[in-house]
Amino acid sequence: MSNRGVVYTGPGKVEVQNIADPVLAGPDGRKLEHAVILKVVSTNICGSDQQMVRGRTTAEPGLVLGHEITGEVIEKGADVEMLSIGDIVSVPFNVACGRCRCCREGDTGVCLTVNPARAGGAYGYVDMGGWIGGQARYVMVPYADFNLLRFPDRDRAMSKIRDLTMLSDILPTGFHGAWKAGVSVGSIVYVAGAGPVGLAAAASARILGAAVVMIGDFNAERLDHARRVGFEPVDLTRGDDLPEMIAQITGSPEVDAAIDAVGFEARGHSGGEQPAIVLNQMMQITRAAGNIGIPGLYVTEDPGAVDDAARHGSLSMRFGLGWAKAQSLHTGQTPVLKYNRQLMQAILHDRLPIADIVNAQVISLEDAVQGYESFDRGAAKKFVLDPHGMLAA
Amino acid sequence: MSNRGVVYTGPGKVEVQNIADPVLAGPDGRKLEHAVILKVVSTNICGSDQQMVRGRTTAEPGLVLGHEITGEVIEKGADVEMLSIGDIVSVPFNVACGRCRCCREGDTGVCLTVNPARAGGAYGYVDMGGWIGGQARYVMVPYADFNLLRFPDRDRAMSKIRDLTMLSDILPTGFHGAWKAGVSVGSIVYVAGAGPVGLAAAASARILGAAVVMIGDFNAERLDHARRVGFEPVDLTRGDDLPEMIAQITGSPEVDAAIDAVGFEARGHSGGEQPAIVLNQMMQITRAAGNIGIPGLYVTEDPGAVDDAARHGSLSMRFGLGWAKAQSLHTGQTPVLKYNRQLMQAILHDRLPIADIVNAQVISLEDAVQGYESFDRGAAKKFVLDPHGMLAA
Amino acid sequence: MSNRGVVYTGPGKVEVQNIADPVLAGPDGRKLEHAVILKVVSTNICGSDQQMVRGRTTAEPGLVLGHEITGEVIEKGADVEMLSIGDIVSVPFNVACGRCRCCREGDTGVCLTVNPARAGGAYGYVDMGGWIGGQARYVMVPYADFNLLRFPDRDRAMSKIRDLTMLSDILPTGFHGAWKAGVSVGSIVYVAGAGPVGLAAAASARILGAAVVMIGDFNAERLDHARRVGFEPVDLTRGDDLPEMIAQITGSPEVDAAIDAVGFEARGHSGGEQPAIVLNQMMQITRAAGNIGIPGLYVTEDPGAVDDAARHGSLSMRFGLGWAKAQSLHTGQTPVLKYNRQLMQAILHDRLPIADIVNAQVISLEDAVQGYESFDRGAAKKFVLDPHGMLAA
Amino acid sequence: MSNRGVVYTGPGKVEVQNIADPVLAGPDGRKLEHAVILKVVSTNICGSDQQMVRGRTTAEPGLVLGHEITGEVIEKGADVEMLSIGDIVSVPFNVACGRCRCCREGDTGVCLTVNPARAGGAYGYVDMGGWIGGQARYVMVPYADFNLLRFPDRDRAMSKIRDLTMLSDILPTGFHGAWKAGVSVGSIVYVAGAGPVGLAAAASARILGAAVVMIGDFNAERLDHARRVGFEPVDLTRGDDLPEMIAQITGSPEVDAAIDAVGFEARGHSGGEQPAIVLNQMMQITRAAGNIGIPGLYVTEDPGAVDDAARHGSLSMRFGLGWAKAQSLHTGQTPVLKYNRQLMQAILHDRLPIADIVNAQVISLEDAVQGYESFDRGAAKKFVLDPHGMLAA
Repeated sequence: MSNRGVVYTGPGKVEVQNIADPVLAGPDGRKLEHAVILKVVSTNICGSDQQMVRGRTTAEPGLVLGHEITGEVIEKGADVEMLSIGDIVSVPFNVACGRCRCCREGDTGVCLTVNPARAGGAYGYVDMGGWIGGQARYVMVPYADFNLLRFPDRDRAMSKIRDLTMLSDILPTGFHGAWKAGVSVGSIVYVAGAGPVGLAAAASARILGAAVVMIGDFNAERLDHARRVGFEPVDLTRGDDLPEMIAQITGSPEVDAAIDAVGFEARGHSGGEQPAIVLNQMMQITRAAGNIGIPGLYVTEDPGAVDDAARHGSLSMRFGLGWAKAQSLHTGQTPVLKYNRQLMQAILHDRLPIADIVNAQVISLEDAVQGYESFDRGAAKKFVLDPHGMLAA
Repeated sequence: MSNRGVVYTGPGKVEVQNIADPVLAGPDGRKLEHAVILKVVSTNICGSDQQMVRGRTTAEPGLVLGHEITGEVIEKGADVEMLSIGDIVSVPFNVACGRCRCCREGDTGVCLTVNPARAGGAYGYVDMGGWIGGQARYVMVPYADFNLLRFPDRDRAMSKIRDLTMLSDILPTGFHGAWKAGVSVGSIVYVAGAGPVGLAAAASARILGAAVVMIGDFNAERLDHARRVGFEPVDLTRGDDLPEMIAQITGSPEVDAAIDAVGFEARGHSGGEQPAIVLNQMMQITRAAGNIGIPGLYVTEDPGAVDDAARHGSLSMRFGLGWAKAQSLHTGQTPVLKYNRQLMQAILHDRLPIADIVNAQVISLEDAVQGYESFDRGAAKKFVLDPHGMLAA
Repeated sequence: MSNRGVVYTGPGKVEVQNIADPVLAGPDGRKLEHAVILKVVSTNICGSDQQMVRGRTTAEPGLVLGHEITGEVIEKGADVEMLSIGDIVSVPFNVACGRCRCCREGDTGVCLTVNPARAGGAYGYVDMGGWIGGQARYVMVPYADFNLLRFPDRDRAMSKIRDLTMLSDILPTGFHGAWKAGVSVGSIVYVAGAGPVGLAAAASARILGAAVVMIGDFNAERLDHARRVGFEPVDLTRGDDLPEMIAQITGSPEVDAAIDAVGFEARGHSGGEQPAIVLNQMMQITRAAGNIGIPGLYVTEDPGAVDDAARHGSLSMRFGLGWAKAQSLHTGQTPVLKYNRQLMQAILHDRLPIADIVNAQVISLEDAVQGYESFDRGAAKKFVLDPHGMLAA
Repeated sequence: MSNRGVVYTGPGKVEVQNIADPVLAGPDGRKLEHAVILKVVSTNICGSDQQMVRGRTTAEPGLVLGHEITGEVIEKGADVEMLSIGDIVSVPFNVACGRCRCCREGDTGVCLTVNPARAGGAYGYVDMGGWIGGQARYVMVPYADFNLLRFPDRDRAMSKIRDLTMLSDILPTGFHGAWKAGVSVGSIVYVAGAGPVGLAAAASARILGAAVVMIGDFNAERLDHARRVGFEPVDLTRGDDLPEMIAQITGSPEVDAAIDAVGFEARGHSGGEQPAIVLNQMMQITRAAGNIGIPGLYVTEDPGAVDDAARHGSLSMRFGLGWAKAQSLHTGQTPVLKYNRQLMQAILHDRLPIADIVNAQVISLEDAVQGYESFDRGAAKKFVLDPHGMLAA
């Protein structure tokens, strides 16, 4: 297959290298008859890839990156019954067995068997089970019948591929945030963070029927883009009084639902990192009896944190703020399988132009390094790698 | 106040007559300090009014009709604390006390105290507690703080009044049907009946994120209108094989969610009444594990039924059809208060152009008789009465 | 293995015969690496087996019966990863693939792939996919990692095996009925039918916290048993006025939640079959805004029905009764996997003595014919077959 | 009426004093026709009363304490329709209007209108709207039809009054914690804190069907009592490794559901206050995809806190612990009305012996000071004041 992929080579560095061809075997070398090999049709760069590359994790050099994968089935194990060679499929970023208690209950983000270290597996990610990443030309996917979402028609899929490629992670992740925040028809919503996940959360809030969707950030380019695609931008560089800025838009300092699409790398108006600032703001602006969806990542250990407490994952939270308003806080990796089928339907029937909303930009696999650099500088884009030139066509 | 209202005067007949001015007292004459008097801003003709007028109920001549009311508070009892004179408010068609078990649990459609005969009250409706109808210039509303939805701004409300007038009944009723049918983002939906409630159900399905919304009827004018406002019409005059007609549109004979917006006056392809035909079709076309929302009215006694069984409310249902597919069926009057606030928000923020979708036509109160006649002949319109010329302006 | 099993040999007749040994292959002969062979530890006779034996279905002679199976893994395919030889496991009566949309969403009762004829598969049952029944010494179970519930400890499991054997069907089925009927802490509950499923529903209502659990039947022996295990018996031979009989117990003619554990073979006080009588009663006695759980079986075709309408599955339902009270009706085969793990925990920790509640009686496989006969005559017992003498010990 | 009540007179001090007789008027002096005057039948001392008395709040001397009230209606306003003089009623500790958005949606713990300072009102509590407390002989209750739970029969109520008195706060509060933690049939549950709320949470978990209910504390007397009433005690003086202690009981270091019945006054094994230690432990021991119910109080300002951060309500939370396991955290005052009716039914039908479980001890109103002192020293008792000697009889 002459595989190539994006490899983390040390803090701040990624390279596109020749890598091993995938085989129907797990990280421990065991043969996996339930797996398939995919020719990668598209694979996106994610903000959480950046967290590894920026050295905010314990990722080791040599890791093949990439957990946002759409592909074509080119080989399958003997136990794969529902898929055929040639199928175009979306790969949830979570590796899940489909057989444990969590998977049976739909909580595929915390599968109990695919990662010996903890609940939950993923491709190309530190501490997530050692499954090889998919920013590559080819990749192996285990438990394929369970994990993969098959697109019903190849041509129709390829005609929407820039949108469908978002089903592997950020669209369901944004949707999960909006859903858990209780967004429904008529909701007033605030999304913290105008990066791709924030935009996906905003798009999800809109298709869930939200009346007003605000999105806050410090990045002018991202705010401009958010406005262009129909959301109310909130420019956080204007000061610290978020309730006041919200009230200027809606007439009320509180919202029905809030979504934290930033996570632990949050920073305040003054510029420094304040890992709990977004959480505290969400409690402050969310109405009594409201819900807060937290798709943004919070970690148990953060080697690059600003202080010792944060290095051990301790945040200074004003928990009483939320308690006084009887709020619920919903955390964790998104179980993509819970949402990707219905979001696919919305895309295929022209209800959810997610590629435009996140400003998808297709580049070749060989240009991945520049994509990482541009994204790290805050470009208002979502980079989609095109390893075989199937999207460029 | 020199009140006038629409009065049922016998099978097939309504008249606009002088009627008594409303007072702060209940059907039993008891003083109600929790009530308000409204100047009626708008009040709509409903399909269920027609059922009385067509003699399909035990309604007695002299009944003042009308349960879809929007008004302005002009007088209030001593116990009304949250409303002010001059407020523009939407009146849920359900009369509810806000104090019984059902109301406390949000089930205002089956309030236990406002109707001695059975659970559930309404204005201007037979067997619903004797509350005087609001197709009139003035009307009394009890338990006003609990029942009324106040519009936040008078001018903004009046600028959207053709839409907001649908909050008293058909929009929440359509929404209830869609919600209980489990419509969510990406759903494939079928709505039986292209009258105003069917269109409201279709509009609700769309704002809930449905991927495809089909709507079936025999009436060409209504189907044309449905198509114009963006739904997929299904022309039932073409034959009896509904699954096949659906498959022609979506590729599959089954839908994710089905809504019966027809009720017991259903008829088959051959023309005669078949009270269970829509229910049976809904079970036939809904997917396994799916839900069926049934806002369409089914009665316990039907003096005008085609046969003796139906006269006593017995329908010939193929219940095993639904059982084999593990479906749930959801019935009953809509608890409007569960939904009207959020739907108001969607209207005020330009997400739900319900007046255009149901083809609202404003006429004067004095023209109500012609409105009834036109609607009874199947006009693809929702008639909105304007007793004080406040909408015409 | 020298397999033997219970075989349906024609209307009214079953025999214990030598049958083929199970192999790791499906009804179509395809090799199944995801399957296991079980040595059957226990396997129960079910009321729905009787429906076949009584000729109320299109079952063909030669069918090996049995879908309530607990077993020990003695052989496994190459793709079985989570189970070991020697594990004691409970087999949900539903055959499910764990890979289709319905299974992913937890609706294993209507799996889309294991039965070419319709949604949903089962062992030893007509029209359910051709999977061989388990009232036998050995049986094959496909998709074993997904389908099987492993008991955590062999000795502890064997010490509770008379209870745990109920996890394959009737306990989850009764629980599903109670759960869908909305039974919660403090509920007043009525269960129609004092057979094993009715008793399991009553036991489920109790562990869900119900305040009062009534159970109605015509069979004096079953009512006596129900009373002995702590439920309020309702003797239907006393007359037709169910609301009045309920009011004598609770002071109110309505209940919070009702469960139909009878199904289409229902009969009235006068003795003849009235397929809709229980459904109509459930609507009559359930409170406004209440839910009705319907684990009792309703069919699309009934060759043995009392009249032509019922032969084609048409029942005379007073649907308006339920509509007027805004009830929801919940139907269908139970998705056992949704409930069996938690019910196992309740059994293992001494919270749910289900064997005593359903009056489990262990007999040898060779005595199955007598068990069928006794159960068909209405014995207040649940027969558990013990093919290897493992329970008798 | 010659009213007397328990008055907070300064840090560490309460007195029983003559206080003003209640009138049908609000804190602002406005006449309230929707109010009633109750003769207090029973009224309990609550842990949150202690927080005021210990000086952990900004409560001013002169405050009449008491929010756990059961009473007899002796006077009612003109707008009270559903209650009669002589009715025995339970008063939810939340004052709620029944007319605002939160009340309509069932969130009576954060009523928007009864407290000008913030969402949520209560009797006899600092910052909760100025409603006079009910550790007294007489008390006024506003919005009586909405707020009060009427016991169906006076004699039956008085015979269970030691249990029913727990419906005003701690039983629903414990239940809310268990419910939001997702406790269901078969759950393995851990409750932090063996005080009355912790015991009520444990009792609630049990009636919800939990398989195992553990309860942790440092207080030997409380742990002994917990064991006597059937729960598994966890002695926190044994060390800091809670997962290990849990594993010794259940075989697994994680539980299905955890309930924090301690709140911000938590302390660690070493003895000092560590306001976030229980929250962090709950995240540590709760399974992936689990829920944490937090009825224990967390505050926005704590004048008596151990450090400056805690004084401003900032806690050092290891939020990433919960995030990595995709947990949800549920906070806030309990909306008592959501639960008290069903819990009353469970008590009246002998399913929930809550008085014994929390070790209710009835004392006279005049002995309240000793009750406060004993409870503050950690007595394993729930003190019930009996202002009129109606319980002693």
